[in-house]
Amino acid sequence: MDPVRKLNFGIVGGGVGGNIGKSHLRGALMDNQAVLVAGAFSRDLERNRVSGDLWGVSQDRVYPDYGTMAAAESQRGDGIDFVIIVTPNHLHYPVAKVFLEHGIHVACEKPFTLTVSEAEELCAIAREKDLEIAITYTYAHYPMIRQARSLIRDGAIGEVMEIVAEYPEDWQMLAQNQKPDHFGNWFSDPAKAGESSVVGGMGIHAWYLLRAMTGLKEEKVIAQFGYYPKSARLESNARILLRYQGGAQGVLWTSSTAIGHDCTLSIKIFGEKGAIEWEHDDPTRLRVALVDQPVQIMTCERAYLYPEARAMSRLPAGHPEGFYEAFANIYREFCRHLLDKKAGHVAGEYYYPDMQTGLDGMKFITACVQSNREDNVWTRV
Amino acid sequence: MDPVRKLNFGIVGGGVGGNIGKSHLRGALMDNQAVLVAGAFSRDLERNRVSGDLWGVSQDRVYPDYGTMAAAESQRGDGIDFVIIVTPNHLHYPVAKVFLEHGIHVACEKPFTLTVSEAEELCAIAREKDLEIAITYTYAHYPMIRQARSLIRDGAIGEVMEIVAEYPEDWQMLAQNQKPDHFGNWFSDPAKAGESSVVGGMGIHAWYLLRAMTGLKEEKVIAQFGYYPKSARLESNARILLRYQGGAQGVLWTSSTAIGHDCTLSIKIFGEKGAIEWEHDDPTRLRVALVDQPVQIMTCERAYLYPEARAMSRLPAGHPEGFYEAFANIYREFCRHLLDKKAGHVAGEYYYPDMQTGLDGMKFITACVQSNREDNVWTRV
Amino acid sequence: MDPVRKLNFGIVGGGVGGNIGKSHLRGALMDNQAVLVAGAFSRDLERNRVSGDLWGVSQDRVYPDYGTMAAAESQRGDGIDFVIIVTPNHLHYPVAKVFLEHGIHVACEKPFTLTVSEAEELCAIAREKDLEIAITYTYAHYPMIRQARSLIRDGAIGEVMEIVAEYPEDWQMLAQNQKPDHFGNWFSDPAKAGESSVVGGMGIHAWYLLRAMTGLKEEKVIAQFGYYPKSARLESNARILLRYQGGAQGVLWTSSTAIGHDCTLSIKIFGEKGAIEWEHDDPTRLRVALVDQPVQIMTCERAYLYPEARAMSRLPAGHPEGFYEAFANIYREFCRHLLDKKAGHVAGEYYYPDMQTGLDGMKFITACVQSNREDNVWTRV
Amino acid sequence: MDPVRKLNFGIVGGGVGGNIGKSHLRGALMDNQAVLVAGAFSRDLERNRVSGDLWGVSQDRVYPDYGTMAAAESQRGDGIDFVIIVTPNHLHYPVAKVFLEHGIHVACEKPFTLTVSEAEELCAIAREKDLEIAITYTYAHYPMIRQARSLIRDGAIGEVMEIVAEYPEDWQMLAQNQKPDHFGNWFSDPAKAGESSVVGGMGIHAWYLLRAMTGLKEEKVIAQFGYYPKSARLESNARILLRYQGGAQGVLWTSSTAIGHDCTLSIKIFGEKGAIEWEHDDPTRLRVALVDQPVQIMTCERAYLYPEARAMSRLPAGHPEGFYEAFANIYREFCRHLLDKKAGHVAGEYYYPDMQTGLDGMKFITACVQSNREDNVWTRV
Repeated sequence: MDPVRKLNFGIVGGGVGGNIGKSHLRGALMDNQAVLVAGAFSRDLERNRVSGDLWGVSQDRVYPDYGTMAAAESQRGDGIDFVIIVTPNHLHYPVAKVFLEHGIHVACEKPFTLTVSEAEELCAIAREKDLEIAITYTYAHYPMIRQARSLIRDGAIGEVMEIVAEYPEDWQMLAQNQKPDHFGNWFSDPAKAGESSVVGGMGIHAWYLLRAMTGLKEEKVIAQFGYYPKSARLESNARILLRYQGGAQGVLWTSSTAIGHDCTLSIKIFGEKGAIEWEHDDPTRLRVALVDQPVQIMTCERAYLYPEARAMSRLPAGHPEGFYEAFANIYREFCRHLLDKKAGHVAGEYYYPDMQTGLDGMKFITACVQSNREDNVWTRV
Repeated sequence: MDPVRKLNFGIVGGGVGGNIGKSHLRGALMDNQAVLVAGAFSRDLERNRVSGDLWGVSQDRVYPDYGTMAAAESQRGDGIDFVIIVTPNHLHYPVAKVFLEHGIHVACEKPFTLTVSEAEELCAIAREKDLEIAITYTYAHYPMIRQARSLIRDGAIGEVMEIVAEYPEDWQMLAQNQKPDHFGNWFSDPAKAGESSVVGGMGIHAWYLLRAMTGLKEEKVIAQFGYYPKSARLESNARILLRYQGGAQGVLWTSSTAIGHDCTLSIKIFGEKGAIEWEHDDPTRLRVALVDQPVQIMTCERAYLYPEARAMSRLPAGHPEGFYEAFANIYREFCRHLLDKKAGHVAGEYYYPDMQTGLDGMKFITACVQSNREDNVWTRV
Repeated sequence: MDPVRKLNFGIVGGGVGGNIGKSHLRGALMDNQAVLVAGAFSRDLERNRVSGDLWGVSQDRVYPDYGTMAAAESQRGDGIDFVIIVTPNHLHYPVAKVFLEHGIHVACEKPFTLTVSEAEELCAIAREKDLEIAITYTYAHYPMIRQARSLIRDGAIGEVMEIVAEYPEDWQMLAQNQKPDHFGNWFSDPAKAGESSVVGGMGIHAWYLLRAMTGLKEEKVIAQFGYYPKSARLESNARILLRYQGGAQGVLWTSSTAIGHDCTLSIKIFGEKGAIEWEHDDPTRLRVALVDQPVQIMTCERAYLYPEARAMSRLPAGHPEGFYEAFANIYREFCRHLLDKKAGHVAGEYYYPDMQTGLDGMKFITACVQSNREDNVWTRV
Repeated sequence: MDPVRKLNFGIVGGGVGGNIGKSHLRGALMDNQAVLVAGAFSRDLERNRVSGDLWGVSQDRVYPDYGTMAAAESQRGDGIDFVIIVTPNHLHYPVAKVFLEHGIHVACEKPFTLTVSEAEELCAIAREKDLEIAITYTYAHYPMIRQARSLIRDGAIGEVMEIVAEYPEDWQMLAQNQKPDHFGNWFSDPAKAGESSVVGGMGIHAWYLLRAMTGLKEEKVIAQFGYYPKSARLESNARILLRYQGGAQGVLWTSSTAIGHDCTLSIKIFGEKGAIEWEHDDPTRLRVALVDQPVQIMTCERAYLYPEARAMSRLPAGHPEGFYEAFANIYREFCRHLLDKKAGHVAGEYYYPDMQTGLDGMKFITACVQSNREDNVWTRV
């Protein structure tokens, strides 16, 4: 049997009471490839301390701030190999920068940064220092998305002609989200969220799914934003026309005001020979249609899947896996990459969203914001 | 018991072997309000004769052409009250015109005409002669669409903010549709279909559904067309951004190249208090979501429906009714209108698409064609 | 083009205001193979007269009772070829008997009779006189059931091992059905409905579907009935274990007290190589699973279907057809059989439920009633 | 903020390469209430050692067998509070017994034991020593099952009349499961699995779900087993009629030969006022129907849920949680119970399947086996 290889890692953000931090930690820990040994969970001292106890981090590695943590960990022989960043958007850039500068790999919640130039700067630092950055476009790491990707890559549906993506939720309309302390508050604040709310926070997931599944790169966009309430500073829904390099066309709709929708991200990809569709509401299934054939429904962990797609399930067919496992699928590949780097034998594909996808995502968001501002003209990405 | 009232009617087009004519006839005959007594089914003499036998039309009222039919029927004391027009698009205008000029009401397959001016002319004639025109936007006449309309009218979902409509089919990709004699051939020919193929032939149904459900009128559109094969003269798919009077926004996607889709028209309408969704794949259900409430699934013929919606079902809950019944629901209301007119006591709403909806539909198609031609700029409807 | 062939037919029952009569008539008339020329619609004279006007039956062939009708029609040169019987169950036998004795074919609503011996007598008369009887087990005449039948016949799923059938509705619980004049009243009355209510009225449909799809014959049953209200004389739900000749096993559940169910009949058939499933809630789809393969979803009118299954659709794929068309599919085959008999060239399969299925159905109902009465012991069918 | 409380625990079974052990460990570790400190993962020495490394267990607490482990851990001041047992069925009894005798709480995979008397003996020991036993009937610990339980308890659907449960899978038919080393081999071996295969391995989950949701206790059963291949010693599918105390009736079908089914456990519960339905294929939704009302679809984590049901989700609505979280929901309550016991303030309900449910499950399995053996007569549970 192979010996067990493990990395050490830390986290910035993710204090007790929050939500997204737990998802990252449960994902990063799931496959026993990495051990959480350090954290700057919260600027609240008690919350920081209790978070350390909860996650089993020794209190001498529970740091008061991310700068101290980066400096201290980079000095240790057993210091962290990578850091997870789960702060509000505006802190992604400064936190990532300091850890990269201290030679520590980064896993960062999306969107990567607030601006394209911030993203470019982080990429430049990482490349110079031969460091890796993972961006958690989580929805692309359900097993069936990888099945779709391999099918499309191998020509199963022919040349892609048309794409339809939707990502509605209704969190902005719910009574609980009208409260002063709701996370939606920073999400709607340009200083913390950036120039976009739902395109940056939700639409970007659909954007990345299309990229991951098809490999296509968009050339230009028309974006039309909607605002709720009408006085909102950032958009609450958006409709985006897409023109891809090579001629494929598409439309992407996202909304945080779609009452009755939990998180019903869906993707439809139409080629000249067939079509592939997936819905987050039913993430373990993939709908594959070929011309003049019955529609096929593929499900997770079945023997007919590509090995790389089957391997993304941890349980037998029909035993639902969810969002945490999607996170874990990113971290499993990211850790495998870092472990291989440490061992000096990087080879093959590591299937996780890398720094380039973080940068490209920022370009997409920026182009949408600009198109909307300029009366919905075509805008180059 | 009320005495039985019936109209006489005729048809132009719909000869044996065709498809859409049967749908109109089965719909028009279903509720025993009208008797088919005349027809110019086909320019093929034998097909015309056999069609008459099949549908029980006396051979002396099986006419060689629509002009002869209009003239002869208008002379008879028992002549037809209305004519159904199911020819290719380019004949809608001349056929409708001659029957209207002879004082005969018209039920016409959509799109109404080839151009806005043709539609305006027909409306002018009809209004001058106090005649009615029904346009068979059939999909809006499933029972649950009427339920949606009444719910929205009564404020159940508050002010409408956002609309998402989709209408994919895959007929253009199917092997059988590559044959020379396929109906798709005239559907792709500007001389017979008009300036648009799928917007005029499919998208217009989604357009009308939105109109019927919400009552909103669109102010301007951006339309992006796709072509398959790339050399096609008319579009095979389209993505349309919508801006409604009052500020609601929307997106409409339609495609005849969406492999694996039979006829999966779907409508999502989002208001400030709730949302209503309907799919043609499952036409007997309506999804109604209110903020902070479980989603409700309404089904046909249930006691909790509005009476006007419940009355559109002919069978007990759960016994599927389909496309023919949707046609029948148009014809039932159209015939009731004509019977009331004959009896001199027109009153209340007759729920069928009238001539104004035919004209407005042509304006919508025309605006989409123009926006697509002019690099997808906003175009007033 | 072939000349148009038509039959004449009449109806007993089906007066204005009823439900099931309309379904039969719309089905029998849909394909223009038969003309309604006679009727004893109702014992209420005015309802009888108005029903004749509504359906275009000349008043001299609107008869006060079925005996007069059978006698008069059998005397005419243009008398009816067949009669449709849509009375309450207890009248099926006397009405069918008199028409058969007058040499007239019969189409009868299920269950065929009240007892096995009545059914045997009617079969004997029909066979002696070379007459045909159709029993409207309607649900088996959706197109996809025929696809399933052909697939199973050709071994697509191997030897059938297991069967699961469900047929829940909730009509018995609805407020409207608590009213004195509700049809449920005769349905719960042994004198009119027979010894069984839901097995005879609903379960029998599931029984026939299994027969039609698999060709298997059941050997013995265990039936457990439930009663609502507890004082009811006939069962309101039932669970039935099935043992088929050859060893296949099954279970059939039916209920009229299943709140929230419109008419959700479903069938699952498991073989050694694959499985086939169908739901009445979604009648245009068939789910076909083969070992180690993605599940296939077949839909109506697609080119990959068996020709005999495809031919059962009247509309292009995706345009829903429903209960009336299922009736029409029975009548189309029944009329084709009678027309071929008249023309003297009977050949091939006529796919409709014949008199033997009526008799076998009565044996099934009787065995279930007996098993339930005798503490749920195995009872031979 | 509350101080962090944690338990120590160990595991017997669950070595690297297995499946169910990972599920237990990921579930038990998810909420940071317990730390894995000891294990007898495998009788294979290397697998045992590597498993320890993988899960971070110090090698001095990686034991060669469960007896040694129980003895050693019970001697330590920081010894384990509870042990997880994930061996084949026949070892549940001896392993549980030795840990209980050493004063250690037990969490045991189902079915509890091989026989009723084994289960009774374990319960007696546990009660005498004031120890707790959890049985991982995992499927009952999805959030929506608890919502159903609370709704039924509060009378939302009135008195329960009828129950329909189904649990089909197809693992027994798959090519991969024909291999000599497949887990199905011990699952089909009476010496290791006990007297029943699918009733004990699958049906018991449906049985417990019904118990958890309704609180009803079954009085007697009729069970009909099927065998595939026909020579199999244990059943591969079963149909079970149920009679509950108080008069409710039900039917339960389970199969491991249902091709095309991943793990489609479903439950339908019909009361006099409404109905509740749940499907494992879509575990985050609950279908609630009330008489004469639209069907309601409830989803996880929504504000309209009971607090105890809402609290079982760890992520916002629409972010899928799955099988691991269902395990975690059992372990969270089990650990809370043990922590409260240690702290001396046990109070309220701890929602996990306790030893009585383990014993009752064995009685249910035994009654089914007996009914099947005796020609399917009613057998008391």
